[in-house]
Amino acid sequence: MSALLLPIVAHAQLFSLTKDQMVAWTADNPFERFDDGRPKVPDGLIERARGLSSEEIFAILPGKGFRNQYEDGFQVLHPDKKLVGRAFTLQFMPMRPDLDGVINAKAKAAGLDRMYNQVAIDMLRPGDVLVVDLFGKTDGGTIVGDNLFYYVMKATKGAGLVVDGSIRDLDGISQMNMPAYFRHAHPSAISNVMITGINVPVRIGNATVMPGDLVVGDSEGVYFIPPALVQQVVDNSDVIHIHDEWTRMKFDEGKYKSSEIYGSPKDPALKKEYEDYLKKRLDEIRKKYSK
Amino acid sequence: MSALLLPIVAHAQLFSLTKDQMVAWTADNPFERFDDGRPKVPDGLIERARGLSSEEIFAILPGKGFRNQYEDGFQVLHPDKKLVGRAFTLQFMPMRPDLDGVINAKAKAAGLDRMYNQVAIDMLRPGDVLVVDLFGKTDGGTIVGDNLFYYVMKATKGAGLVVDGSIRDLDGISQMNMPAYFRHAHPSAISNVMITGINVPVRIGNATVMPGDLVVGDSEGVYFIPPALVQQVVDNSDVIHIHDEWTRMKFDEGKYKSSEIYGSPKDPALKKEYEDYLKKRLDEIRKKYSK
Amino acid sequence: MSALLLPIVAHAQLFSLTKDQMVAWTADNPFERFDDGRPKVPDGLIERARGLSSEEIFAILPGKGFRNQYEDGFQVLHPDKKLVGRAFTLQFMPMRPDLDGVINAKAKAAGLDRMYNQVAIDMLRPGDVLVVDLFGKTDGGTIVGDNLFYYVMKATKGAGLVVDGSIRDLDGISQMNMPAYFRHAHPSAISNVMITGINVPVRIGNATVMPGDLVVGDSEGVYFIPPALVQQVVDNSDVIHIHDEWTRMKFDEGKYKSSEIYGSPKDPALKKEYEDYLKKRLDEIRKKYSK
Amino acid sequence: MSALLLPIVAHAQLFSLTKDQMVAWTADNPFERFDDGRPKVPDGLIERARGLSSEEIFAILPGKGFRNQYEDGFQVLHPDKKLVGRAFTLQFMPMRPDLDGVINAKAKAAGLDRMYNQVAIDMLRPGDVLVVDLFGKTDGGTIVGDNLFYYVMKATKGAGLVVDGSIRDLDGISQMNMPAYFRHAHPSAISNVMITGINVPVRIGNATVMPGDLVVGDSEGVYFIPPALVQQVVDNSDVIHIHDEWTRMKFDEGKYKSSEIYGSPKDPALKKEYEDYLKKRLDEIRKKYSK
Amino acid sequence: MSALLLPIVAHAQLFSLTKDQMVAWTADNPFERFDDGRPKVPDGLIERARGLSSEEIFAILPGKGFRNQYEDGFQVLHPDKKLVGRAFTLQFMPMRPDLDGVINAKAKAAGLDRMYNQVAIDMLRPGDVLVVDLFGKTDGGTIVGDNLFYYVMKATKGAGLVVDGSIRDLDGISQMNMPAYFRHAHPSAISNVMITGINVPVRIGNATVMPGDLVVGDSEGVYFIPPALVQQVVDNSDVIHIHDEWTRMKFDEGKYKSSEIYGSPKDPALKKEYEDYLKKRLDEIRKKYSK
Amino acid sequence: MSALLLPIVAHAQLFSLTKDQMVAWTADNPFERFDDGRPKVPDGLIERARGLSSEEIFAILPGKGFRNQYEDGFQVLHPDKKLVGRAFTLQFMPMRPDLDGVINAKAKAAGLDRMYNQVAIDMLRPGDVLVVDLFGKTDGGTIVGDNLFYYVMKATKGAGLVVDGSIRDLDGISQMNMPAYFRHAHPSAISNVMITGINVPVRIGNATVMPGDLVVGDSEGVYFIPPALVQQVVDNSDVIHIHDEWTRMKFDEGKYKSSEIYGSPKDPALKKEYEDYLKKRLDEIRKKYSK
Repeated sequence: MSALLLPIVAHAQLFSLTKDQMVAWTADNPFERFDDGRPKVPDGLIERARGLSSEEIFAILPGKGFRNQYEDGFQVLHPDKKLVGRAFTLQFMPMRPDLDGVINAKAKAAGLDRMYNQVAIDMLRPGDVLVVDLFGKTDGGTIVGDNLFYYVMKATKGAGLVVDGSIRDLDGISQMNMPAYFRHAHPSAISNVMITGINVPVRIGNATVMPGDLVVGDSEGVYFIPPALVQQVVDNSDVIHIHDEWTRMKFDEGKYKSSEIYGSPKDPALKKEYEDYLKKRLDEIRKKYSK
Repeated sequence: MSALLLPIVAHAQLFSLTKDQMVAWTADNPFERFDDGRPKVPDGLIERARGLSSEEIFAILPGKGFRNQYEDGFQVLHPDKKLVGRAFTLQFMPMRPDLDGVINAKAKAAGLDRMYNQVAIDMLRPGDVLVVDLFGKTDGGTIVGDNLFYYVMKATKGAGLVVDGSIRDLDGISQMNMPAYFRHAHPSAISNVMITGINVPVRIGNATVMPGDLVVGDSEGVYFIPPALVQQVVDNSDVIHIHDEWTRMKFDEGKYKSSEIYGSPKDPALKKEYEDYLKKRLDEIRKKYSK
Repeated sequence: MSALLLPIVAHAQLFSLTKDQMVAWTADNPFERFDDGRPKVPDGLIERARGLSSEEIFAILPGKGFRNQYEDGFQVLHPDKKLVGRAFTLQFMPMRPDLDGVINAKAKAAGLDRMYNQVAIDMLRPGDVLVVDLFGKTDGGTIVGDNLFYYVMKATKGAGLVVDGSIRDLDGISQMNMPAYFRHAHPSAISNVMITGINVPVRIGNATVMPGDLVVGDSEGVYFIPPALVQQVVDNSDVIHIHDEWTRMKFDEGKYKSSEIYGSPKDPALKKEYEDYLKKRLDEIRKKYSK
Repeated sequence: MSALLLPIVAHAQLFSLTKDQMVAWTADNPFERFDDGRPKVPDGLIERARGLSSEEIFAILPGKGFRNQYEDGFQVLHPDKKLVGRAFTLQFMPMRPDLDGVINAKAKAAGLDRMYNQVAIDMLRPGDVLVVDLFGKTDGGTIVGDNLFYYVMKATKGAGLVVDGSIRDLDGISQMNMPAYFRHAHPSAISNVMITGINVPVRIGNATVMPGDLVVGDSEGVYFIPPALVQQVVDNSDVIHIHDEWTRMKFDEGKYKSSEIYGSPKDPALKKEYEDYLKKRLDEIRKKYSK
Repeated sequence: MSALLLPIVAHAQLFSLTKDQMVAWTADNPFERFDDGRPKVPDGLIERARGLSSEEIFAILPGKGFRNQYEDGFQVLHPDKKLVGRAFTLQFMPMRPDLDGVINAKAKAAGLDRMYNQVAIDMLRPGDVLVVDLFGKTDGGTIVGDNLFYYVMKATKGAGLVVDGSIRDLDGISQMNMPAYFRHAHPSAISNVMITGINVPVRIGNATVMPGDLVVGDSEGVYFIPPALVQQVVDNSDVIHIHDEWTRMKFDEGKYKSSEIYGSPKDPALKKEYEDYLKKRLDEIRKKYSK
Repeated sequence: MSALLLPIVAHAQLFSLTKDQMVAWTADNPFERFDDGRPKVPDGLIERARGLSSEEIFAILPGKGFRNQYEDGFQVLHPDKKLVGRAFTLQFMPMRPDLDGVINAKAKAAGLDRMYNQVAIDMLRPGDVLVVDLFGKTDGGTIVGDNLFYYVMKATKGAGLVVDGSIRDLDGISQMNMPAYFRHAHPSAISNVMITGINVPVRIGNATVMPGDLVVGDSEGVYFIPPALVQQVVDNSDVIHIHDEWTRMKFDEGKYKSSEIYGSPKDPALKKEYEDYLKKRLDEIRKKYSK
């Protein structure tokens, strides 16, 4: 059987993908890519995604079979500041010296001192959200303190950080204007771990994250949207926003029970009224985008 | 920087390692290897390892910098039956259809129907312990029911199973004579997950496991011992066993306080007595091995 | 024995009480009632109850044998906005199709499409607090999103929501000015549950709630006060407020140890001073009420 | 709206159902009923159900839309003794004196001293499993100690007990030969609770239980099977048992990979072999039943 | 105020009490004392206490105001072997080098090498149960491994161990015939803690334990009984045992509902029958004791 | 052995230390002391400590062997208000009437009514932080409500409160301007506990606290610094602050990767630049202190 498997055993769980591998593993991506093959959701869609809520993403993803793209249970640094950006993923595992020795030898051969968190941080680009699997670790699981958080903010233009692990120096970080999602804050420095993957698939709680996913965080939690579904999600959210507008206008009139208006109007005349409203507002919105 | 990294980005977190990669990532292995490069701790050492307790492994590993090789919190199927064998690792992640599609396309190209748990189970050999990262999943995280458990028992000659996840049909499995460590039992079949690695490094709770590690489980928990340290661990355990024998003989005499005898005898004459006893018994034991 | 029980087996745990039943099960209610028999704590007492803290309610209820009327562990939407209103209760249970079929057949016979959360929401009145037993459910346990939250706010005149379960669209809901207590926020819609009671006794954590109870929530948790004790609670809270005023005035003088003043003044002259102060201030307050 | 609801508001969550109500709420029941209307799964099916595992029940129920009939996380008194019987349900809520006063007044009117756990226990019949919602309560949540456990064992002919709450005197109870599932053991007597329902629908964790459900417990957890599905579950389990037999016979031959045999044989000849075996064995088993 | 306190500030939370202090702090003790002042519950009562269950102790203690003498949540080594003996208490706190330095300097002045767990273990006497506050610590919170467990068993004549912390080498300890209650098993040696009290009051979870308390453990948990209440508890347990005997004899007759017999017989004739039976059996039992 | 121990058994875990004992147990203190022997970290250092973060304390303490001086998991009343002051410690244990009787007899002999929380609160001085071991208790574990919180604020000049337990009247307390760290808020009054130590060593979670420790709390958690290390911590924090300044200045230049600048500059010229900057800024800061 292992012979049969040979064509597919081209790689393993350490460090990153070649460009070809990245392209193969993200074949559904409809957008351009970065030099390393990572999907590049366009800036225009990222801007539109700032208006998304978790509910609006939920309206599309599970129906398409993507039931494991949401994670919550984080401490949210700035709950009133939406997190939006492209996933740059980083995977840690508990340190074992034999494996760490091999990793660092390879790093040295590549011209690096050693493999550690700043190697990955130095690779961040504007619009990237750093997504880190530190397996929920508290003591020693602190991906950044205030200085590196500051650097990440500068390098990503404030896009953000999601860590299934910890940050240190919460007081200092709270002063900075970048969204961040983390499990704990702890005074310790990062320790007793090793990097085993940069821009590989990572697991953040119950979500599987691919490099290049669109990351959207609100005060509830974080969604990781495959690039192939981004357009549909943001288009559909326009409809939801208009539906919300119309529903509340009707509720404000005070003449209807909730079930007469919501989820959809029962009365045919009301239904027609809603559909006309929807069409008109969608036209307005799309005109705005096309400018 | 990504250019500099190129020499080390030969692989990624999906499926298994080539033989060369396996050899490179387990370079410290002092023993023979299987055809796929996985270290093969000799059968003789495996037999001697049946006498190990977690404490005896702890006596060596942290001192060598291996502080993340132990995990507990499992339900233990047969607490009075020691688990010993070579790690065969398996990694799952939460299902996402885009990635799963690529994986199955590659599996099909390799002559398989699709990639699922039985593909890995069919690769097991005598003496293998199946070590599975199902990230603690309960519902749908059931690596085997009683039928596949039976097959694993046959294929591994009863070596065993460790799953950071679940099994199903506990009543049926309890009738079978193979050690197993699992988080939960649940009636559901495995679902909503995909295989992302066979014989790659995996994380089981706070332990990092490499394919070929010697897996030793007792009623407390499970240790994953790097092959390079197996000889030292089992040799040292002989000394510990003899020390236990002697300590209790002395305690049985009823003449000493515990602190006069243990950790080591305070009185020089007693110390000499112990050292003579240790030498004599070690000789006896080692003679036994050499037969 | 079942024959003996017949006189008392007039009803069961599904849907709501008849008016007669409601009156019988809330026989201690000293106030008027709604058309359906639900006790109606007067608006004036509701206004006075806005000044209550959990401690002031605790000062009365356990002493009267009501030790299970408080629940905490909620996420509190607006911790600085007191929740006060009359309990409108709603009970869900995990969906089972056979029972749900019977429930919906009865709903249809009553002229409804089916039995679901909006049926109850459409029954809310000004001053009602919607109290929902969703047994702590997260995924699928979301009683309202932002649209229905908006409707509840309009219908109850902003009285509030307590759910042993979840809400969805936290970002949207946070913009709205109604107190809410919930266990989690989740992007999913309500699912896999069925309504089994409207305005029946419900359990919220360790509290038993009757329709018509006065619900009072502060930043600690939520109290459910039987109508028969409301007057005593608010009257006693006046005394506590005055005691607080006087105690802090004395502490501000800086001449006394805490134990000389609090719980009650040790010195007879001080005791007299306090009692005079209490009488004077009570008179003032009560004059204010009588206007 | 409340007018529309009137036809369906015939009952509420206190005490038990009339016979007519019981029949209406369990309309799908295909079997005879007890005098009080509770479905009576036949003794023959109960006997056959002793061979069921949770997995075999799972094979049918979720596919029929019954996804909330299983609960685990219990301490299991005799894990090697299957629990099988008809659900007799009992619901408690946290004590509140006003409601308890009404309940006891009604009990007194029915010729009882007061309403307490023994009133229900005295109603148990052979084959009943006492299923109790004590909302996970530990201190004061002890449905029985060793004396009443002994009585329940006598009255139900050893059928069993499931309590989402506690028992007391675990040492004494362990000596008795009746299956029991409970959350905790605690030395306290039952207190600070009141009975609010006998043979009404109850929630046990995430499962909804109806009086008359077939209760089946193994070492994993407890399933509550609606009477209408019992026949199908036990019939299908015969097929599963035969499939298990055949699968292991094939595995014992040592010629096949697991995927060639299980879930179903890939090779057409093997498939035919299995189908013949299934038919022959099913005939044998059914002959046995018909005797 | 500190001047006023001077007469009572004679001691503090480090090391042990003088004999006078021990006598003062356990003034209610009705029995003899050890040389160090620790109460010595007589051997005869210890023997009778072997028949106690937690429920029988609960029948007396809370009614006397002792509501914090029970703790559970332990792993129980031999659940079928009752734990009974006199509390020898030991308190640890997290290590801090400044305090540890002072402690060890004092230990050295007293002729000891240093202060560590074996200093206390060497002081154990037959019938002592070692009760250890290690604040629930797992890693490094292991009071004994198999060698010291063996010594404790010898020194106490198998009385037992209760540790709010861990043990190591569970496999080895399981072979030994002494009851033990612990939170976890872990392979680590004790570390990162310091001894701060020997035979001082300690807290084990929610229980306050005094040196000399009678410790009774069953499969549910552990009770710490003040010496002054031991006689009453064991005397009352005789009554409970007889009541159990009689109750089950009556249940065996199959003529009564549970409520007619238990808690106490309703029928005056039955009540008389019970009282006669109680008197007769009590006489028999007490005759046995007096021999 | 107990004879040998006599010189060190001068005290025990109840009430407080004599001045001599306090001096002995805090022998490393380099500063003046209060009348009762408690170390008095100077006001000037307390002021400088207001600038400390947990990370800056972590930079010194573990390296000196103090690994158990930090605790988190608190609710923080005013996360943006640093907590700084001298530890005044208070220890409670679960109530047992025999011990409580002795304690209150001694209290009465000392001229007090009885021993309770206000006895300790009345002893607080300006700059004290009240540090309370209430073993995480919620119901009945409320060290203060709003009135006593107000008194503590007045008496300590707003220094603060840390309680491994609860407070009551969170709404009232939130209005007051003193930092507080607590586990829960609950409406109950303190009950079912007894004071067993004032200004003795206490355990707060995993930290050991001595009276006179410098307590520093930020939004992450609380550090308890031994007086002997305070000077070094605050001096070193000056260096860290300057390092932060310089690092961010460099990051702002946008010319460097994070690894070129941080943890320390790689380039010798940059290193020199940093060292010059550090020297200059340290001089400025120290000049400021010396004024």
